[in-house]
Amino acid sequence: MTQWIDVRSDTVTHPTPAMRAAMANAPVGDDVYGDDPTVAALEQRAAEVLGKDAALFVPTGTFGNQLALFTHCDQGDEVIAGEDSHIVWHEVGAASVIAGVNLRPIPAPRGVLAPDEIRRRIRPAGDIHLPHTRLLCLENAYSGGQVVSVADSAAAWDVAQEAGLKVHLDGARLFNAAAALDVPARDIARFADSVMFCLSKGLAAPVGSMLVGEAGFIEIARKKRKLMGGGLRQAGVLAAPGLIALNEMSQRLGEDHANARLLAQHLGDIRGIEINEEALDINMVWFRLTAPVDVDALMAGLLARGIKANPPEQGLMRLVTHWQVGKTEVARIADAFEALLAA
Amino acid sequence: MTQWIDVRSDTVTHPTPAMRAAMANAPVGDDVYGDDPTVAALEQRAAEVLGKDAALFVPTGTFGNQLALFTHCDQGDEVIAGEDSHIVWHEVGAASVIAGVNLRPIPAPRGVLAPDEIRRRIRPAGDIHLPHTRLLCLENAYSGGQVVSVADSAAAWDVAQEAGLKVHLDGARLFNAAAALDVPARDIARFADSVMFCLSKGLAAPVGSMLVGEAGFIEIARKKRKLMGGGLRQAGVLAAPGLIALNEMSQRLGEDHANARLLAQHLGDIRGIEINEEALDINMVWFRLTAPVDVDALMAGLLARGIKANPPEQGLMRLVTHWQVGKTEVARIADAFEALLAA
Amino acid sequence: MTQWIDVRSDTVTHPTPAMRAAMANAPVGDDVYGDDPTVAALEQRAAEVLGKDAALFVPTGTFGNQLALFTHCDQGDEVIAGEDSHIVWHEVGAASVIAGVNLRPIPAPRGVLAPDEIRRRIRPAGDIHLPHTRLLCLENAYSGGQVVSVADSAAAWDVAQEAGLKVHLDGARLFNAAAALDVPARDIARFADSVMFCLSKGLAAPVGSMLVGEAGFIEIARKKRKLMGGGLRQAGVLAAPGLIALNEMSQRLGEDHANARLLAQHLGDIRGIEINEEALDINMVWFRLTAPVDVDALMAGLLARGIKANPPEQGLMRLVTHWQVGKTEVARIADAFEALLAA
Amino acid sequence: MTQWIDVRSDTVTHPTPAMRAAMANAPVGDDVYGDDPTVAALEQRAAEVLGKDAALFVPTGTFGNQLALFTHCDQGDEVIAGEDSHIVWHEVGAASVIAGVNLRPIPAPRGVLAPDEIRRRIRPAGDIHLPHTRLLCLENAYSGGQVVSVADSAAAWDVAQEAGLKVHLDGARLFNAAAALDVPARDIARFADSVMFCLSKGLAAPVGSMLVGEAGFIEIARKKRKLMGGGLRQAGVLAAPGLIALNEMSQRLGEDHANARLLAQHLGDIRGIEINEEALDINMVWFRLTAPVDVDALMAGLLARGIKANPPEQGLMRLVTHWQVGKTEVARIADAFEALLAA
Repeated sequence: MTQWIDVRSDTVTHPTPAMRAAMANAPVGDDVYGDDPTVAALEQRAAEVLGKDAALFVPTGTFGNQLALFTHCDQGDEVIAGEDSHIVWHEVGAASVIAGVNLRPIPAPRGVLAPDEIRRRIRPAGDIHLPHTRLLCLENAYSGGQVVSVADSAAAWDVAQEAGLKVHLDGARLFNAAAALDVPARDIARFADSVMFCLSKGLAAPVGSMLVGEAGFIEIARKKRKLMGGGLRQAGVLAAPGLIALNEMSQRLGEDHANARLLAQHLGDIRGIEINEEALDINMVWFRLTAPVDVDALMAGLLARGIKANPPEQGLMRLVTHWQVGKTEVARIADAFEALLAA
Repeated sequence: MTQWIDVRSDTVTHPTPAMRAAMANAPVGDDVYGDDPTVAALEQRAAEVLGKDAALFVPTGTFGNQLALFTHCDQGDEVIAGEDSHIVWHEVGAASVIAGVNLRPIPAPRGVLAPDEIRRRIRPAGDIHLPHTRLLCLENAYSGGQVVSVADSAAAWDVAQEAGLKVHLDGARLFNAAAALDVPARDIARFADSVMFCLSKGLAAPVGSMLVGEAGFIEIARKKRKLMGGGLRQAGVLAAPGLIALNEMSQRLGEDHANARLLAQHLGDIRGIEINEEALDINMVWFRLTAPVDVDALMAGLLARGIKANPPEQGLMRLVTHWQVGKTEVARIADAFEALLAA
Repeated sequence: MTQWIDVRSDTVTHPTPAMRAAMANAPVGDDVYGDDPTVAALEQRAAEVLGKDAALFVPTGTFGNQLALFTHCDQGDEVIAGEDSHIVWHEVGAASVIAGVNLRPIPAPRGVLAPDEIRRRIRPAGDIHLPHTRLLCLENAYSGGQVVSVADSAAAWDVAQEAGLKVHLDGARLFNAAAALDVPARDIARFADSVMFCLSKGLAAPVGSMLVGEAGFIEIARKKRKLMGGGLRQAGVLAAPGLIALNEMSQRLGEDHANARLLAQHLGDIRGIEINEEALDINMVWFRLTAPVDVDALMAGLLARGIKANPPEQGLMRLVTHWQVGKTEVARIADAFEALLAA
Repeated sequence: MTQWIDVRSDTVTHPTPAMRAAMANAPVGDDVYGDDPTVAALEQRAAEVLGKDAALFVPTGTFGNQLALFTHCDQGDEVIAGEDSHIVWHEVGAASVIAGVNLRPIPAPRGVLAPDEIRRRIRPAGDIHLPHTRLLCLENAYSGGQVVSVADSAAAWDVAQEAGLKVHLDGARLFNAAAALDVPARDIARFADSVMFCLSKGLAAPVGSMLVGEAGFIEIARKKRKLMGGGLRQAGVLAAPGLIALNEMSQRLGEDHANARLLAQHLGDIRGIEINEEALDINMVWFRLTAPVDVDALMAGLLARGIKANPPEQGLMRLVTHWQVGKTEVARIADAFEALLAA
């Protein structure tokens, strides 16, 4: 079997051999009864790592984000979020279906929700025409792979505190952000009441995300998780690789980032490729094809060389590194582009 | 009894004597049974005036807009609307509660939703992450009183047609827009599948709005109106003044607009007042207090002179003319400001 | 014009001449600004009559009931109600759309929700699988016109108190119930946290209902009324006949009940009619056509005699008396049935 | 470590060694991209076994049921279901939150929804007051472990066909029902448009359920699964044990049923225990403690003997057999009860 080089996303990561072994050996129980020791260990560890009271295992990142909206908000409340954030763009409109809240998207260049932009959207109290602005949603790393600084996170948090808003952090790639900023994840998580992070993606667990926050919040979220159909039974088989993801894989993300920069460097040397140097914060390489190119031929050529990539959208391509894309694979990708664009 | 001059809004208009007489004499019936002849006449007339198949009486403008969302959309759909529009700002977050839809606010300078801004927010089909963009909401006259041209309405409509979107027009002040553009209301309504307009506000009916559209749409809306608690019984008592509003009061709005311009002219001559000439399309006068002013004293002084106005927000004031504010009242208002700002 | 005798329902009642005059002369204001003195007077009077803190004018009974659910409950809560109650049967499924709650219908013979039946449906706390039972909905007079005794109301209330449930009373025909029980309406309203009653129906106002309850409840309901599109402007034109409905028409319902019994007595003497003596509590007469009858001919014959009635459903007919159906009309109806069934 | 005998439920089942090995070795891919071969194989196999077009892996049974409601229904529709069914009782009120539908619970003795009871609750079309009755939910095996015959399933289906209703079958324990009836599962599934069944519970997979139905239905459900946060990534690690559950474990359920009957027989011989012979269809044993018993002492005694059971509710106990409860364990349980009740 050919071993593919899959750079479409870090969502494609396979579990590591250690994860597969952990799944096979995980002590399990019925987690709806609170009987699964592996889930309990993961939840405790996640809370500890993020410096929060408690945590909850959820099936996906979207599930965790929507559960956070559902738990923080009443129906009809308004939620401020970056206009390119995952919650606004990629969660199928769930916010108005499950939590029954309005999203209020605001500009967020490089993922930064500027204090003034936030303030402008907070509804004054006491006007009978206005919904209640309840929640501010941050995202770090942001949608396109940009990392938001601790200072910018703190500034957004401060606005929320002034106005009595809760803050939720969509940290699907929180550990990438932490690695890029070279701070512990808890230093980012400090500026949020609740945090969702994914065990899959760069951390390579096959399935699962965590929602982390205050004890009371997590207790309510646990019941609402059941309502949303996320009360898994012997979830220890997923928590076991999750613990490896959290404890071990989170430590090696710098390597993916370095490989992304290496890939960017190689690709940048190729005529017809223009790297977006502004979007090299984590494990994503964004570039533009500057010369006319036969896209079908390019994609076929990559596939023929064992490389899975998403086709360019309006000339823009994104490649994503992860634990299955090392220096060898980076070289193979760069060579492939060089050959195919020369043709 | 002092006769107040109330320029807080045109929502404060009292019914005219003719309207009061019409209420007292209206033939009525149980409109849930379809038995109210006055409601039937009003619905028929509203459809005719706007050049649509059918119409439905609804208790308020918010009710009509939300009913339109609820009838056009499925739960979870996305709705594009101007970021300062009434649906986005002043309907208490209802869209996510009743219709269960997401609003996608976009910039709309002077109420114009530019084709490119609309196109950028229409979700491509076939991506499992994305909600369905179902509806485009226009508003004319727009929130702050700006009138959108027929050409701009047509351009937005054309984008919707390309993309298979439905178009709803919040025409709370549609007849003001028509008067300002000097076109029949139907020439604006052409560029929308459904239109809501208010019989109250400048048209002076005490209660009620109309939702107008295709026969099939109105049939579904009629049932959903019942679900939303808007199935009134002997609504003919409201439809009777509504007919006067639609047939007669709609013809005299030019007078309100002229009075607004006259008021702007007088106020503009006063030191310390700077008129926003860009926002003089209809019956609203916006101006800035350019000199430091004791707001409490100003408001008390106006009240003492029999004038009800909303206080400035960050130095910005809005006065609104309507059938109870004629040339005499305009002069009294201007005199009052002159005296109070001189003090 | 023939004066119809309309016994299809008491929802068909026309406003009285006094009501028409009151509409024409009502002092009004913009009730969204809290400026309508007639609405204020009606709200104060309604609260007083029912012995509660505060009241709110709403467009319809369905609106008032749904607003009560929306105000008392969180999304996902469970609401216990009689299985033939209006909220369960005739509100188009609104409960799951607006409030987002589950109705839990229980048997309610003659409108009585027996304490044991209620208790059986109250969910124990602390089980993660179960929704929160939040609210008990009573209805008096009940759906088919049955009146629930004060003792039965108190018994249901007591169960709710034990279990920490709120109680809402759908009193669309509360004053009929009060007249039938010969107690002031407040003696029934005591056993509910919130009460909706209609100004239309037997009380003959053209449009409108009241939601009554604690001050804090009504304050929240006022904002949610705006969200639901029920924030009317110069609603004084409806409140004026509403005051007559509440103050005067509520006093004469005994007459309608007597007329219903008189009609039952006359009809009961006719061969082929079997009166349901169990359902003669208020202004409704239920009877069965015991002989084969040509329904179309019967209905045509009634119409030809100026009588509007709903056709029998599976042999069962309901006629409803109201202020426009006096002794003369009762006689005409009885004569018509006698003639038509003899034929 | 003591090996517990856990008879609280079959939800407590641990994965078998074969399942653990399968997880460790499963070929996986990103199932959101449709790249997971093991999930694809499971979905194809599930469709085949139930004789339907297509299937979808979902995280839990509640998720699958709610997704079915959300996919079959529009907001505000009504859904008929047995009053003790899982959807009515144990899904935290999700139906009114996510799908926004009303449940209409009807009596269902032994899980049978009698045609007349169903027909009585189907709303006539064309009445503006009534929600649309859209869906009939069956459940087999029913809540308390009762199995519904093929004939009764067919009869309910026939009513639905007459009335144009869709039918969803909550088959959380469908294979138990099939084993009890000694028919292939597809013979029950025939009488439903969509079926949810669990891979966990008696089939012992650690996590996961299947939603099965027509191709078009499953396509829509796939997108709505994403909205609900159920779009897992490398779900092959769960699909692998799922395939074993479906192919192998489904064949051995008769053994669990036999063990339940054996347990019932032993327990029935003990003084102070009265077996409910009516509820012995599958792997559940229901019995009443007929003599006064110190419940805390009983539960402590069972625990001390390595037996986990749920305490009696009002004297009623339920024990559930599964693959980890063989003849030896049955004997140990019976001995324990004998000893403890004698004491």
